[in-house]
Amino acid sequence: MATIKDVAKEAGVSVATVSRVVNKSPKASKAAIESVNAAMTKLGYRPNANARALVSKSTNTIGVVVADVSDPFFGSLIKAVDGIARANNKHLLIGNGYHDAQTEKEAIELLINNRCESLVIHSKGLSDEELVQFANEVKGLVIINRHIPEIAERCISLDNELGSLLATEYLIENGHQHIAYINSSQDIDDSHQRHFGYVTALKKHNLSINDMLFSAAEPTDEGGAVAMQTLLNKDINFTAAVCYNDYMAAGALSTLEEHNIAVPNKISLMGFDNGLIAKYLHPKLSTMDYPIQAMAEQAAELSLALAKENNTTIKGTIFKASLIKRDSVAKTN
Amino acid sequence: MATIKDVAKEAGVSVATVSRVVNKSPKASKAAIESVNAAMTKLGYRPNANARALVSKSTNTIGVVVADVSDPFFGSLIKAVDGIARANNKHLLIGNGYHDAQTEKEAIELLINNRCESLVIHSKGLSDEELVQFANEVKGLVIINRHIPEIAERCISLDNELGSLLATEYLIENGHQHIAYINSSQDIDDSHQRHFGYVTALKKHNLSINDMLFSAAEPTDEGGAVAMQTLLNKDINFTAAVCYNDYMAAGALSTLEEHNIAVPNKISLMGFDNGLIAKYLHPKLSTMDYPIQAMAEQAAELSLALAKENNTTIKGTIFKASLIKRDSVAKTN
Repeated sequence: MATIKDVAKEAGVSVATVSRVVNKSPKASKAAIESVNAAMTKLGYRPNANARALVSKSTNTIGVVVADVSDPFFGSLIKAVDGIARANNKHLLIGNGYHDAQTEKEAIELLINNRCESLVIHSKGLSDEELVQFANEVKGLVIINRHIPEIAERCISLDNELGSLLATEYLIENGHQHIAYINSSQDIDDSHQRHFGYVTALKKHNLSINDMLFSAAEPTDEGGAVAMQTLLNKDINFTAAVCYNDYMAAGALSTLEEHNIAVPNKISLMGFDNGLIAKYLHPKLSTMDYPIQAMAEQAAELSLALAKENNTTIKGTIFKASLIKRDSVAKTN
Repeated sequence: MATIKDVAKEAGVSVATVSRVVNKSPKASKAAIESVNAAMTKLGYRPNANARALVSKSTNTIGVVVADVSDPFFGSLIKAVDGIARANNKHLLIGNGYHDAQTEKEAIELLINNRCESLVIHSKGLSDEELVQFANEVKGLVIINRHIPEIAERCISLDNELGSLLATEYLIENGHQHIAYINSSQDIDDSHQRHFGYVTALKKHNLSINDMLFSAAEPTDEGGAVAMQTLLNKDINFTAAVCYNDYMAAGALSTLEEHNIAVPNKISLMGFDNGLIAKYLHPKLSTMDYPIQAMAEQAAELSLALAKENNTTIKGTIFKASLIKRDSVAKTN
C-alpha cells in the first residue's frame, strides 16, 4: 500500500502538505490540493482513518455491545442502531458480551479505546456500579435493556415485570387458574422481573401461587423442552404456561406435541419477545412484543446527542411490551 | 477525558516517555513505567487505540461485510468470524452491504480506511472486477459465499447448483415428476445457480422442464407465500416444490395451509439454508444445510493468514450443501 511519503514524493510536496489536503485544512492551496489528489489517485493511496481520527480526536463510530450477534433479537437491535448511524454518517463497531462480566468489560473497553464517543451497551454481567463508572467516563454511553436508577436518563429499558403481568393476565382472562411459569435459569434481572410479574398477576387476581408450577432451564428451545417435561413429570394439573421467551415456548410446544397434548386446547402457551420464530410456530405463538427496534433507535439517537453535548429532548425511557394475540391461547373448558 | 499531556504532567515525565510506556517500547525505564502507569490509573487515562494503531501501522481488527446483520444467517456468519477473531486477540468491525453495489463499496472502503488488514466480504452487488481490484489492494481480503475464478484461492463459497440439484433429486427419488421451483427474484448469482441446479436435476432424470411451474418473488416468507399462490392460480398439476430458501418455503407452507392443502401428503416442500426457522415449521422443513459456520471460520482464518503473509495451507474452497431430511417431503401416491 502507498504511504503518505510516497504521495508527497509523487506530488512534489511535503508530507505536511499532503496531510493538510487529506484533513481538508483551509491552509492547503488549490495547486497543492490538485497535485496531491492526482498523486493519491495514481498511487491508490487511502487517507488513513486512524490518522484522521487522531487529528480530530474523535471517530465516526458508534460502538454497540450485545450478548450475541447471532441471536436475531440482537440482530434487530444492531440493525436499528445501524440505521441511525447511517443517517448520521457514522459507522458501527460491534462487540459481543455473551452475558459474561469480564467479556462485557473487555468489549466496552475496546470500544472506548477506539474512541467511540457514542456507545449503546447491552450488559447483563456487569454490576450497576461498574456501568455507572463507564457512563461517567464516556458521556455518550447509553444503556439498553436495563434500568439503572442513578443514570436513568441514559437508560432505555423494558418493563419486564409489566410485560409478564400482562401475559399472565391474558391467560387469567381466558379462564385459566392453574398457570405454570417456565423461567430462564440465567441469574439476570430479566428472569427475576418476569417471574415477579407472573407472581404479581396471580396475587392481583387472588389466585394461589404454587411453587410446583415453576420450572427453570436455559432460555433456549432445548431449555423450554426440558422445563415443560419437568412440569409434566410432576403430574400436577395446569392448563396454561407463561414462558420466559419465545424460544422456551417453542421448546415447551415440542414437548407437548410429543406427548400428544394439544395446544391451545389442552394447554395454552404465552411467549415473550415476539421474535422471528413466533409466527412460524404451529400454532402461531401468542406473545408479548418487545419493541427492540424502537428502543434501539432511541438509544442510538440519545447516545449521539449526549456525545455532542447537545441539549436533547430524548429521554431515558422505560418501554412497555404489548400483547400479540395469535393462536396458542384458548379459553379453558 | 484525560489526555497524554495530563499523564505526562502528573507523572513528571515527557509526552514521549508516556508514549514509550504506552507502546511498550524497550527504551522505557522501569521507573518511567511505574510513574506513568500510576498516573494513568489516577487520571483514568486510556491509551488511545488510534495512536497505537498509527504507530504499529495496523489494527487488531477484522472487518466483515454482510448483507444484513439482522438476518440470522449473517448473524451466524459474524459469530463464527468473531470466534476466530477472539482466539487471535482481534476484534470485529462490521458493515452492512444490503446487496447494493454502492453500499457494499462504501462499507468495504470504510473498513480499508480503518486499516483492517483482514477482511471477510460478502458482496452480491459489486462486479467481479471491482472485487478483484479490492483484493489486489488488500492482501488479507477474502470473499465469502461467492466464487470469482481470478481469485479462487481467496474465495470461500458454496456450490449452489449442486445443492439445488440434490434437493430436486431427493424429490425425484420420492417419486415426484411434477416439481415446481420457487425462486428469489433478486438478480444475484445464488438465484441463477440454484435455479440451474433444479433444471439440471430434471434433465438428468429425463423429466420435462415446464416453465409454468416456475415462480419468483422476494426471498422472504411473504415472497414465498405470493409465489405459491401464483402457482396455485395457474391450476396446473404439481406434487412438490423446491424453494430458493427456508423463508420462501415457510411462506409457501402458509399459503398451502390457507388452502387446506396438506404438506407433505398433497405437496412436498424443500427449503434451502437449514436456517433458524426450519425446525420450527410445521411440518419440520426438509432442506439443504448451508455450512455457513464452517465456511465463515475458514474465511476468517484464511484472511488472518494472508494478512500476515504466512504460508498457509488454508485454501479457497467450494463447500457442498448437505441434505437434511425432516418432515416436509413424502412419497407421491
